[in-house]
This record gives sequence, structure tokens and C-alpha cells, in this order.
Amino acid sequence: MKQINVGLIGFGTIGVGVVRELLANSDLIAQRSGIKLNLVKIADIDIDSPRDVRVGRDMLTTDANEILDNEEIDIVIELIGGTNAAKQFVLKALSSKKHVVTANKALISKCGPEIFACAEENGVDIYFEAAVGGCIPIIRSLKEALVADQATYAMAILNGTCNYILTRMEREKLDFNVVLEQAQKLGYAEAEPSLDVDGHDTAQKLTIMSSIMADSWIDYENVHVEGIRDVTQKDIEYAAELGYRIKLLAICKISEGNIEVRVHPCLLPLEHPLAAVHGSYNAVYLNSEFSDDLMLYGKGAGETPTAVAILSDVVDISRNILSGCTRRLPSISNQLTRRALVPVADVQGRYYFRFTVVDKPGVLAKISNVLGEHDISISAVMQKDRHAGEELPVPVIIMSHRAKESSVHKALETIDQLDIIKDKTMMIRLEAEE
Amino acid sequence: MKQINVGLIGFGTIGVGVVRELLANSDLIAQRSGIKLNLVKIADIDIDSPRDVRVGRDMLTTDANEILDNEEIDIVIELIGGTNAAKQFVLKALSSKKHVVTANKALISKCGPEIFACAEENGVDIYFEAAVGGCIPIIRSLKEALVADQATYAMAILNGTCNYILTRMEREKLDFNVVLEQAQKLGYAEAEPSLDVDGHDTAQKLTIMSSIMADSWIDYENVHVEGIRDVTQKDIEYAAELGYRIKLLAICKISEGNIEVRVHPCLLPLEHPLAAVHGSYNAVYLNSEFSDDLMLYGKGAGETPTAVAILSDVVDISRNILSGCTRRLPSISNQLTRRALVPVADVQGRYYFRFTVVDKPGVLAKISNVLGEHDISISAVMQKDRHAGEELPVPVIIMSHRAKESSVHKALETIDQLDIIKDKTMMIRLEAEE
Repeated sequence: MKQINVGLIGFGTIGVGVVRELLANSDLIAQRSGIKLNLVKIADIDIDSPRDVRVGRDMLTTDANEILDNEEIDIVIELIGGTNAAKQFVLKALSSKKHVVTANKALISKCGPEIFACAEENGVDIYFEAAVGGCIPIIRSLKEALVADQATYAMAILNGTCNYILTRMEREKLDFNVVLEQAQKLGYAEAEPSLDVDGHDTAQKLTIMSSIMADSWIDYENVHVEGIRDVTQKDIEYAAELGYRIKLLAICKISEGNIEVRVHPCLLPLEHPLAAVHGSYNAVYLNSEFSDDLMLYGKGAGETPTAVAILSDVVDISRNILSGCTRRLPSISNQLTRRALVPVADVQGRYYFRFTVVDKPGVLAKISNVLGEHDISISAVMQKDRHAGEELPVPVIIMSHRAKESSVHKALETIDQLDIIKDKTMMIRLEAEE
Repeated sequence: MKQINVGLIGFGTIGVGVVRELLANSDLIAQRSGIKLNLVKIADIDIDSPRDVRVGRDMLTTDANEILDNEEIDIVIELIGGTNAAKQFVLKALSSKKHVVTANKALISKCGPEIFACAEENGVDIYFEAAVGGCIPIIRSLKEALVADQATYAMAILNGTCNYILTRMEREKLDFNVVLEQAQKLGYAEAEPSLDVDGHDTAQKLTIMSSIMADSWIDYENVHVEGIRDVTQKDIEYAAELGYRIKLLAICKISEGNIEVRVHPCLLPLEHPLAAVHGSYNAVYLNSEFSDDLMLYGKGAGETPTAVAILSDVVDISRNILSGCTRRLPSISNQLTRRALVPVADVQGRYYFRFTVVDKPGVLAKISNVLGEHDISISAVMQKDRHAGEELPVPVIIMSHRAKESSVHKALETIDQLDIIKDKTMMIRLEAEE
């Protein structure tokens, strides 16, 4: 049996998962692939804290170079995250003709082209299935299962923290801040939650996923990003009354030479398969020219699901080594395409608006006048929480027909200056509607 | 650019889809893989009927040997179906050192080991992603994405005709026969519907899928198979009242050295992701030791979705040829495991019973006595459609706690002989419940 030597840099939660799974399933992997994976060394800046897996003290080091300079090691797994030390380690590994497996979405989304070029120059593989959607096999499905088809529309739930928060806000009728605080206490959200709740983590993953869909490198800076902080429990409730559920979606639309990439809260029809993705689950819904709809659903994060994706990459690369076919698959595409980025202002779609208005006659006429002036026609109106005799502002919900995003912005700017408007208007885009 | 020559045997619906997609996406495939797929010849017994795709007359032949004997051809796509001529053609292609891609579930489920052995002996690849779940990448996900994990429980909707019939029975409150007849008129069901509605098609697919899950060849004859003919619209309605939806599921459970493989109608909890798979869609839900839940959802049949899976296999094999790594992946597993088959009589689970009884006091006591004698305890009882003063038989629905299948059969045998019972009792297993 052929032995492949593996070095691991980063011994945090995911690293522990990789080691645990490797110890448990080494025989299974060998049975299926004829390959014996041999973990040679683990590097981390902290090798003293107790971990939930047993490894010999002599396997641990605080010096990543003990892995990078070890000529016996075939594959380096990079799990330290971030874009500084991780980048140096990955580039050094590749330059030393070592193959690399990484779960580092920040690194790939920021430095993908540089890292892929380095791997190509050195004739080694870099695989990154775990960087998007945990154990959901989205990278390999796009690169291999859909190789003969053009995926033209992806909608994806790629951040478990946001989906968990939105699910609890809906089910328990709680406000965003209350759920966020509880999620932080339970360890489901970070103390500094911005990467998750402001959509940046989702956008990093979308950068990687859409680059493969589009055979074209999509810069992270070109993704339009909005998070879920402004979504209220009331918005979730009103959306449900109208037949929708609010999800934070990563969206990629491809048509002709154009591409749209955006992350923002969306109203999804309740019957859409993505609307049934609850809690911390992730899912990617793809529409493609020939295969029509395809959805992949699963655990998008966590110690063991992420380890499964990492080890699948390690086995894939090991098979390449064994069969002498390194670089069998390109990192993105054999030949990149140029695509024009559609600015979000030019995107067309339907909209949900929640206006906060004084409760008196003529208000709706004023709002709909301004919308009409900007070519935005109304498909539904709902006035909520009106209490006779009270002078408090009330919400008015309006759903639009298809309109251009730039017109929507202009209309809302005008409307929010009317004296009948008592708070900034909430706008949420509808998705998955023709 | 490397050219790979392809021959197609079988120019029916799927064959037309393959040709159409190949013509449309040849450049896309070349861009992504560096491979130019060149369709050399198409064989079919009927080359005169008009097809919805343009190919030159000189590309068509009625003699499959023009493909099998053509030394220029690298890959043969077999799409004639069945297990006679198809088997000869596939074995001849493999013996002639040609790689084979097939969508033929009947052939693989019946003759898998013989065909795989022939491919191995001749050092060529045989891929069959399209044989299970159309464009849903279940074969490659099990073989590659989950290579480092043991999937222990699969539940799958693998027959679009059955799922379409059950969905319409539920939504339109129609009986099985009415929907089947309409489905036949619309072309969604065959004139001879048995392969679909009696579960055989699902069982063929389960044979293939479970063999890969289990690293062990599972004989088709060992799959317990029941279809959906006996499911009534009323069963669907009562199940819904109890919080369940009825689906025809392919089930594979693996524990230690044991395996269960069965196809039958099931009550699934309404909140389960598979319960949201409507109409002709297919889906595979997997539970695995490390990756937890994973679901793949999409079009399980049809001209273009199936073509996508076939061409993904063609490209995979072409990459192998190009990189000199044919046989990079084994057909099933590098080394097979022996697993003991659990007979369905030994399976444990919960059950839905619909008894048809005379409407008088003491009936429930008699039934529950017999159930109790066989260690079957009751979790819920529902008496339906009772009309005062009428002497018609009425349905009594009983849901059991966990019980052994053999005890259930014995109890029902006794119960169905009681004079209070007016029709054969309906039994449906619950699935996805702990």
C-alpha cells in the first residue's frame, strides 16, 4: 500500500476534527483508495492546551517550518485561517512542491489567483472544498458534475450563524440583538460577530463559488454585501404573511458575458427548497441550462463536517500522486473567461418595503405617487398594527413588481424625506421569482 | 488541444439529449478541461425516425459494431437500456479497451460485478453516474466527497414517476389509478407502469447506490421491494393529519457488519427535508458518521439532466486519458467488505396501520389485544369517517411504537382473521424517526 505523508498546520477546532477522523477512518480510507494516510507532524502556536484527541508529544511543533521544510511530507493541510501567516505558509508549501489542502476562505477569496498561479508553476495541486459550505461538495460538483453544463443562477445559504439567527427570530418571535446575544453565549456566534452577521463570510465563500461557476476570477471587492442586522422580527412576520421567508443569500447570476454577485437578505417564496433550510444548515441551489435545478444541503461548518471535506481533498490529491496525474483538475478552469460585472444599481427585481408612517389618510397616495414617478409599480399593500385612536407611527408594507434597483434607491431617498415618514424605510429584495 | 473520440449506442430521448448538449457545450467543455469531445458515430436500430437534433446521415448506423470495432473511438456511451444487447455491447467495448459510460441501471444492478471485473481486467474505466438520480451527483459524492466518512443511513426518492403520483394524489385528493392514468396520458408514466410503481426501478438504483455506500456488492435480489399501488388517497390524508407525508423511499442502513436495503412507501415527518421533495424531483438524504446530514436534490430523469451526468462521466474519463491515470477510481471500492444482510423480518421500526372495521364498541380492544400479545405498543389511535346510524365499515388508524417487523406480520395475520375486520389491513412503515 502506498503511503502519503501529511503535515497539518493549525490545531484548533477543525484541526482536531481532521486528526480525530484520520485516526478513526484511516483503515476505511485505505480500503477505498489503497492509500495509507500518515500524519507526520502538527504545527500550532499553542501546543500545550489540552485537545479532545490523543497525539504523541513528538508529533507537535510550534514551528510550521518543521512541516514546510520536511522533504518527506507530500501534502500540507493549512487550517490556521487569516491571510498573513497562512499565505506565507501556503506559498512556501507550494514552492517546495508540496500539495496543499486548505479550508481558508479568507485566503482563497483574497489571494486566489496568486496562490493558484504558484501551484500551477510548481506543478502541484491546491484543493479547497472545505472553504465553501463545509462538507457540502459544491466545489467538486461545479468543477466535475456540472463540467458540461453552465450554471447560470446560484442562490446559497453559506453562513450557519446568520441562518440560525434568522430561524430563531422567526420561530421564537425574538429580535436580532436578543438572538445574537444568546448565540454568542452558546458559542454559535463570535464575540465579534461582524464577519458573520454583516455578510463578509458569505461574500468570501461566494467569491470562490462564483469564480468556478463563471470560469472567471471574481474579486471579493466586486461582491455587493449587506448583512442581517437591520432585519427585524416584524419584517420576518410580515414576509411570512405574504408567503415568504427571509434568508441571507449569496447570489450569482450569469448571462451572456455578464455576472452579478451579491450577498443580502432576501424574501424567498415559502415553497422554495431553500426556504426549508433551517438553523445552522447551509445549502446551495443551482439553476443550470441543461440540468435545471440542483440543490446540495448539509452542515456548512463544524469540526467533523469540515474535516470530511478536508480529507476528501487529501484523498483526491493522494490518488493524483498515486496515479501520477497531479494537476488533473485546474484550480478554477483550464482557461478563464472575461465577464462584465453588473453593478447592483442595474439589477432588476421585486422589492419588499416597510415604510414607517403617520397613521392618517392620504399617506399611501403620497408613497405610491413617488414610486410611480420612478416606474415602480405596486403588487401588494399591507397596513399593519393599526390601533384606533393612537397617534403612533404604523408600518405600511408594499411589495413591488419588477423594478430597477437604481430607481428604487432614488424613490426611497425622496420618500424618506416626506414628513409622513417617521423612520428610515426598510427595503428587502425578493429572490427566486420570475 | 487533445481530442477524445466518442461513440454513442442508443439514440432515444437521452441519446438525443447527449448529442444536443454536446453540440451546444463543446466549447465550454473544452475551455474547462482542455479536451475536445468529438462525436464519431451514433448507432441505433432506428435511424430513420426524426429527432429533435441535427446530425449528419453518415454519422448514423444501425450496426453497433461500427462503434465497437472502430479503433479511433476512446469512449462508448451505452444508452440502449435493458440487459441483453446492452450487456454484450458493454463487455465488447471494455474488452476492446474502450472506456464506457452508461446510464443503464438495470444492467449495472444486475451485472455490476461481471462488468466491473471486465473493466478492471482490461485496464479501462466504466462510469455510471446517470444510472442513479439523473443529474444528482450521488455516485461521485459517495465515492469522492464522502471517501473519508462512512455513510450509515441513506433515504432516497429515486423514482420521479412515483413521487409525481404521490404528490398529485395528495394535492388534488385523487386516487392512485386516476393519477396513474393521467400520468400515462401525459407521458409521465409508461403504458406498462410496473417498473416504476412497483418499486423495481427504485430498487435497481438502490442496489448501485448501496453497493458504493457499503463497499460491498449488494445483489438486486436482496433488496426488499414494495411499490405504491396499495397506498390510498385516504392514507395520504390520514398521514398528513398525524404530521407525516407518504413517500416511496429507497433505504440503506449500515451498522457494524450489517446492511439493510429496502424499497417501500414510508411515512416521513413533514418537517424532514425529503418531505419537501415534490413532483418528479429526486433526492438522496445521507446520514454519515462525521459529516452528519447531507442531501442532494434535483432532476432525477429527463433528457437534458441525464445528459449532464453522462457528459460529466465522459469528461472525467477523458481527463483520465489525458493525464494517463485511467482506473484512478475503482468502480466500487479498492477492496470489498463482506456485510450480512438484515432480513426485513428483523427490521425494527414504527408502523402506521389502517384497519377497516365494523363500527361498534369493543373493536379497538380486540385489535389492541392482539397487538399487545405481539409486543406492539400503540402510540396513537385515530378513528375516521364515522357516520352515526350507518353500518358501513370505518377506518381505524393506529400508530405503533418501535416493534419488530416479524411481530407485526404475525399480529396482522391474526387481526385480519377477526370477524370485526372487513378488509385487508394497510401497513406503512415510519422512517427517519428515532
